[in-house]
Amino acid sequence: MRRIHVIGIGAGDPDQLTLQAVRALRDTDVFFILDKGEAKADLTGLRRDLLATHLTDGTYRIVEARDPERDRAAGGTAYSPAVAAWRSARAGVYERLIGEDLGPHETGAFLVWGDPALYDSTLGILEEVLDRGTVAFEYDVVPGISSVSALAARHRTGLNRVAGPVQITTGRRLAEGLPEDADDVVVMLDAHQAFRRYAQEDIHIYWGAYLGTPDEILVSGPIAEAAPRIERLRAEARERKGWIMDTYLLRRHPRD
Amino acid sequence: MRRIHVIGIGAGDPDQLTLQAVRALRDTDVFFILDKGEAKADLTGLRRDLLATHLTDGTYRIVEARDPERDRAAGGTAYSPAVAAWRSARAGVYERLIGEDLGPHETGAFLVWGDPALYDSTLGILEEVLDRGTVAFEYDVVPGISSVSALAARHRTGLNRVAGPVQITTGRRLAEGLPEDADDVVVMLDAHQAFRRYAQEDIHIYWGAYLGTPDEILVSGPIAEAAPRIERLRAEARERKGWIMDTYLLRRHPRD
Ligand SMILES: C[S@@+](CC[C@H](N)C(=O)[O-])C[C@H]1O[C@@H](n2cnc3c(N)ncnc32)[C@H](O)[C@@H]1O
Ligand SMILES: C[S@@+](CC[C@H](N)C(=O)[O-])C[C@H]1O[C@@H](n2cnc3c(N)ncnc32)[C@H](O)[C@@H]1O
Repeated sequence: MRRIHVIGIGAGDPDQLTLQAVRALRDTDVFFILDKGEAKADLTGLRRDLLATHLTDGTYRIVEARDPERDRAAGGTAYSPAVAAWRSARAGVYERLIGEDLGPHETGAFLVWGDPALYDSTLGILEEVLDRGTVAFEYDVVPGISSVSALAARHRTGLNRVAGPVQITTGRRLAEGLPEDADDVVVMLDAHQAFRRYAQEDIHIYWGAYLGTPDEILVSGPIAEAAPRIERLRAEARERKGWIMDTYLLRRHPRD
Repeated sequence: MRRIHVIGIGAGDPDQLTLQAVRALRDTDVFFILDKGEAKADLTGLRRDLLATHLTDGTYRIVEARDPERDRAAGGTAYSPAVAAWRSARAGVYERLIGEDLGPHETGAFLVWGDPALYDSTLGILEEVLDRGTVAFEYDVVPGISSVSALAARHRTGLNRVAGPVQITTGRRLAEGLPEDADDVVVMLDAHQAFRRYAQEDIHIYWGAYLGTPDEILVSGPIAEAAPRIERLRAEARERKGWIMDTYLLRRHPRD
């Protein structure tokens, strides 16, 4: 039986790999590295470096493939035909990788950024491949340090306040409004700096970009003061590196 | 200058320690182990085992102390006098540990269950000790695999659905109602199985107890079917071990 490990590798700091993840790497014959087609060669490089650090040359293979890009021009919500077509294309790629590049008694692995449980499609795609029924495999999941945990650690803050809830959401949703029933809100996948909309509110922001990497940038403070600084630093960094990954925590009514 | 590491050690599986955490352990002279006064000698034992596994005997000291218990009979919300008194008592204990048991050029560490960013008071207490101004130190935080990440990995599910939010909350809050604006809800610190209130709703539950330990129990399914099973298994396990730690994800409208 083919086996697959879905391995959370942390969000940037190679030291944030767990011992369990290292064991799973060592147990793997074939690593599938999906290139997202963005200017993120850096991230692919980081994965290769991880393997070189923890494994002996010649004991494993790497198979790279292009992860089909979503046609954003076609728009669409999570359940629209454009998104369904894209999902199906991705499942096709994974199905082919597992069926053709993994021997029937071998173990493959997908290295997932951060924690596989947060805003990552690998598990959904593997389930879709299994549903198709053309290739059989077992799989397990190794949790990783998410960018959310990394953000909180670097700012030395909790995510929730005493006995309070925390919501993890996306920039797109934040643009529609703050959650009703959580005063601590973590925002990921925000290409448009949705926090700017709330710059006049009583909010403390904890922001981090390229967390865990040598390019890491941290800013925190009352949002009215911090927002313009973040905007400037973010634009500069994006310009310099060609891409950016950032996450932030909004803490409403910080003195409560 | 005294230094302190606040180290997330994962939620039960010693292999879920990160490489960064192992380095921080090795960099530490004195480990402070706070006994919560519950029947959780098991958890203190797990911390001692971690140290024995990763460190050389005789290269570190362990200082144990009793973490003052909150007088729950006195009740009170997060900002009531009873809770303030309790916080202050805890800060007193930490202040004394750091001031008396850590040499002026030594490094101490607090080993925090799971991720220090989730429902843990260590960071708040250290800030309070610093505010008092009687003992100076620097500190940093090493993120850990939370019980939330462990739960999702064992059930091989994401926490959020495509582009959707996830809220992390407590049993007490869940007893008051489901969040308005998140259909995926992780519940911690639930002594009263608040999920039972929702057994008639269209919810899929992913439940885990003693995650990452040899006693781990997993149940998932439509809540109407799973709730009675969880209730029974939970009561049996609690009876057998004397304590229980469980966490669950509620997924509303699971077919959406
Ligand atoms: C597709 S999601 C993947 C999240 C990942 N599974 C995790 O656990 O962090 C990508 C988003 O994660 C956040 N992110 C990932 N790595 C980051 C890093 N090193 N620094 C800041 N944000 C990061 C950003 O919000 C980015 O838009
Ligand atoms: C005081 S909170 C600490 C949470 C911890 N900082 C974390 O990141 O998991 C304790 C709660 O965490 C959850 N928990 C911690 N360890 C667990 C485990 N091994 N299995 C299931 N739940 C766990 C339970 O909900 C428990 O009531």
